[in-house]
This record gives sequence, C-alpha cells and structure tokens, in this order.
Amino acid sequence: MSEGEFAIIREIFAPLAANASGAFALTDDAAIVSGGDHVVTADMMVAGVHFRKSDPLDLVARKLLRVNLSDLAAKGAKPSGYILTCAWPRSAKRADIALFAEGLAADQETYRIALFGGDTTRHAAADAPLTVSATFFGAAPRQGMVRRAGATAGDDVYVSGTIGDARLGLEALEKRVKFSPADRTYFAGRYHLPEPRVTLGGALSGFASAAIDVSDGLVADAGHIAETSGCAISINAAAIPLSEQAKRWLEKQEDRAIALAFLATGGDDYEILFTASPRARRAIEMASTVSKTPVARIGSVGKGSGVTFLGPDGETIELAAGGFDHFMQG
Amino acid sequence: MSEGEFAIIREIFAPLAANASGAFALTDDAAIVSGGDHVVTADMMVAGVHFRKSDPLDLVARKLLRVNLSDLAAKGAKPSGYILTCAWPRSAKRADIALFAEGLAADQETYRIALFGGDTTRHAAADAPLTVSATFFGAAPRQGMVRRAGATAGDDVYVSGTIGDARLGLEALEKRVKFSPADRTYFAGRYHLPEPRVTLGGALSGFASAAIDVSDGLVADAGHIAETSGCAISINAAAIPLSEQAKRWLEKQEDRAIALAFLATGGDDYEILFTASPRARRAIEMASTVSKTPVARIGSVGKGSGVTFLGPDGETIELAAGGFDHFMQG
Repeated sequence: MSEGEFAIIREIFAPLAANASGAFALTDDAAIVSGGDHVVTADMMVAGVHFRKSDPLDLVARKLLRVNLSDLAAKGAKPSGYILTCAWPRSAKRADIALFAEGLAADQETYRIALFGGDTTRHAAADAPLTVSATFFGAAPRQGMVRRAGATAGDDVYVSGTIGDARLGLEALEKRVKFSPADRTYFAGRYHLPEPRVTLGGALSGFASAAIDVSDGLVADAGHIAETSGCAISINAAAIPLSEQAKRWLEKQEDRAIALAFLATGGDDYEILFTASPRARRAIEMASTVSKTPVARIGSVGKGSGVTFLGPDGETIELAAGGFDHFMQG
Repeated sequence: MSEGEFAIIREIFAPLAANASGAFALTDDAAIVSGGDHVVTADMMVAGVHFRKSDPLDLVARKLLRVNLSDLAAKGAKPSGYILTCAWPRSAKRADIALFAEGLAADQETYRIALFGGDTTRHAAADAPLTVSATFFGAAPRQGMVRRAGATAGDDVYVSGTIGDARLGLEALEKRVKFSPADRTYFAGRYHLPEPRVTLGGALSGFASAAIDVSDGLVADAGHIAETSGCAISINAAAIPLSEQAKRWLEKQEDRAIALAFLATGGDDYEILFTASPRARRAIEMASTVSKTPVARIGSVGKGSGVTFLGPDGETIELAAGGFDHFMQG
C-alpha cells in the first residue's frame, strides 16, 4: 500500500470503526469479533451491473450496506457490523472515497452498526469498474436463524412493504418509461435506497417458517424458498402490495396481469418474503404493528414444486424466463 | 442471478462448503459462524495489480487464501473458514471458475478450512479485471490475538523463513532479471504461492509482543509495528535470512547493501515479522523447532520512531521511497 492509501484508511475509514473496540481503529491486520453465534452474509456490487456508474457514491455505499442488512433482516438477525473491501478505479480521487465513506457513516448511524475492518485496493486501469464487497455480521435470534428451508404445505405466504417500485425506478433512471416528476423521484429513491426490514425481521423470528429477502424478484425468490423447502408456492397477483405510485402506473397498462408479472419479476425490492403457519396470523399482525412495517398475505404453500402466479381472476399467468425485460419499450 | 450462476454455485462452490454445517450447502442467504471470539481479516485481489492476468486461476485462488491465512498466522489465530466474493469478467467460462475452485479445494484441504458462503457476480465488460475478496475467520488464541501494538524498547526483532524470494520471482516473471531455469522456478513459486506460517504463528502467541505478516515489505511492515507500538526498530541487513537462490543472486550484485535493501522492500514474502522480549529467546527457539519453521533474529526495538536499516558494516542505509523499483533494469 502507498502512503496515500494509508492516509485514506487513517483519515477516512478509521473514524467509521470508532465504536468497534475489536477493530483497533483499523491499525491492525485483523479484528476481534466477539459474542456467540454470528449470522454472516456477504454481497458484492460492481459498477455498471449493480449500480450505475453515474450513481452518487454515498448512495452506492448506503445501498451496499442495505442489501446486506436486508439479508440479515430476512434471517431474523440483529446487525452488528461489517468488513469492507473495495477496488477503486485508478482515477478515483480522495473526494470520491470520502463521499463513499459519508454514505457509510450515515447508514452506520441509522442502523447502529460499525466498520470492523477490511481492505482498500486500486484497479490497474483508470476507468476499471468500482467493485465493493461487504461481509456482514449479525447476532443470531434466540429462536435460531430463519432459514430458506422450512416452509410446509398449508403455510401462508407474506411479503413486507411494496413490490415493483425499484424496478420502475430503474426504468425511470434508464429513461425507458416516463413518470411525473414526483413519481420519478419516488421510484428512483426506492431503487437507490432500499429499506432493509431489520425490525420486522427480528419480530418474525420464531413465527416465520422460512424467509428470504426479495432481490432477484418476488417470483424468483419465492422459487428459492420452494426449492429449498421442497414445496410449491402460489402467489395471487392481485394481493401483491403496490405503492400508490405503482398503482397509478399499473392503471395505464393495457394488460394488467402481464404488468403485475413485470413488477413481480423485477427484483431489487429488498422486502422480506416469508411463510408462516395460519396459526401464526395474529403473531404476524403483531410483528407488523410493532415494527411499523406493512405486511401483506399474498399466497399459500402447497405440495409439489415451483411457483404458480395467479392472475387477478384466478387464472395462471405463464412467466417466461426473461420475457418481461423489454415488453414496455415499444 | 441467472440460472447459470445458480448452477455454478450448486455444482462448483457448494462442495467446498460441505464440511461447514453452518453454511447450509450454500442454499441460504447467510451462514452461521459459531464459537467464541473470532479473529477476522480480509484481503481483496485484483487482476493486473495483485496477480498477473495470465496467472493460472487455481494459483490465484490459492494465493487469495494464503495471503489471508498469513494475516491470521501473524495474529496467532487458528483458521476455520472464509466468505468469498468474486466479480468475474463477463467472458469468464465455467471452466475458468472450476479451475479457480480447484485451487480453493486444494488449499482448503491443506489448511483444514471450509467455505462458509459468499457472492458470485459478473462484471459488465468481457475483459474487466477479475476481482476476488475473502473474509477469513480464525479462533483467537487463548493468550489473546497478537497485535501490531505491543513492541517495547529492548525487544528483539525476528522474521520467519526467507525474505526477497517473491520479489525476485516477480522480476523473473516480468522478465526484468534472468535466472537459471531452476532458480527462476523457485522464485516464481514463492511469488505465486506464499506459505502462510500458520503453525509458527500459533506457537508464538503468548511470546511475541507484536507481529505482522510481511506483505508490503520487511522494512515497511517493521514500520507498521514501530508506528503502532510507538517505538523505533533497527534491522541488521546482514542478518536478514535469504534462500540459497537469493544468495546466489546477491553475490552477483555490485552494491550488496543496496541489493539487500531491494529485497527488504520488495514485499509479498508472507513471512511473520515479530518482536519478543530477550527473555523469550528459548521459547522462540522452541516455537521454531515445533513448527519446523526457521526463525532469524534480525534486529532490535528501541525508543523513538521509524525504522533504521543497518548495512553489513553497521552503516545506516538510506531507503529512498520507491528508489529500488528500477535499479536493476539498466
């Protein structure tokens, strides 16, 4: 490492580790992470793939933390901190890195987490894509981590918040769909800054039989639960919770069933999709109330395999792989 | 993620997690890491910076594990496993990823560690640099993690193994210096495959007052200990342990003091540089014998700050920053 890189660690990153005694102010080669069982998860984000090269770097930093926090939330874990590794383009300036660190600092405060350690490197090329990776630690819930496996026939299927906003945000940012300025701002915000459902996740542990955070898309992630749990899942399209803004967009679409399928396969929602026994309905309601997080019952678990997507009139909508990517562009 | 990526995780990476019960065969979004205090460290490696684009991918994988294992070794920790995140060039083939995983598997067996989880992503561009990151977990030694801070005036300074081989390996691979075929193979091997001193590191905990693994260069890393411990370190150039091969190279150099400085500032040695009280000399000898790892006493800790590099005749050699990078090219 060069003197410049050491200065960046000392001046920009070390303050982010101030609250973690085991991080030794980033003056050592390793950190001590104490406690009992840790729930550990990692996500990597690459410029041009997981975020746009023009995205403000503080938002990129916050998104990196939030996609990881979302994984911990779905598992019922209480986040404590993270290890960060970054490969910066050779051309990155100190101000770029400082802006990134500002985003980290803001969300560290929001979610009461600390930087434990990491590694800062440079790409060889001036314009190589910024690549950032975080490994997150959370305390396992007393009742044990909520797994992907665990859904059984007869369970209800739920999802938190609203679905499809981030997908419409990407469409807006990529200028593929036009919205009113207010709606555009809302959707772009949902794309840039997911809201990890940390409090809800903690409240669900002990009641949810299986859970996943929605990153690949509601339908795809339901498929992950179905596959790992060895069951079938059916989702009622009409029950999928939508924001007022998404509802406005939906009303303008010719084929609403297809449009709903588009939202349900979009991804980047970072809501919690989970299953629970019908006996847990009141507990789920309580968890929703306590965490101030809306939860909608959107389907059911059955015997068999795969995901069935039921249209507003109960008909099965076929979901061709990748078939929705471009249907709105004409 | 696409179906292809899921298949890669299921078929290539999941077998690497078979021995980690908390990894759930990589079918979940998080892993459970149990136990008491964990020593955690992370390193990121970028193609064109930390390894050459033409390096065989199984060696890249093993180097990634070993540079992290070297950090744990210097801290006296017993490695247990790791979280892996990778950003592959868009053009990477399944066979490339499988070769990388072969390297992981080989060293997982050597060091008895397991893959705990991670994330596999793709760059947008076909030729973007492969970027790999590992977060490693080790059990903290009973006597506590060996820190960078802890060296005090009067301590001895030691280093394990031999210094400078990796630097000469890079010179050979970059065709800047010519060696005999046998020496070239030896140096290239030391560059490609560092040998983390895991057993020695464990045996030193409780005796070493401070430690670091040599990655930036013997002198630079001595500087890290000096700075963090608030002391001065002097190194006797003539005491630096060299391989037979490096000695052969040294004999041909006009200015041996400068040539030794070149080796001592090269980096990538992944030996353990540590300090210990003179009272611990017999214990250090025992640790060396038990771990079958040579250890050389190369200097001493004093009051003050910074690193002094003493030439073969006791004279101070000035180490101009970066001044050795090209001295052999003419």
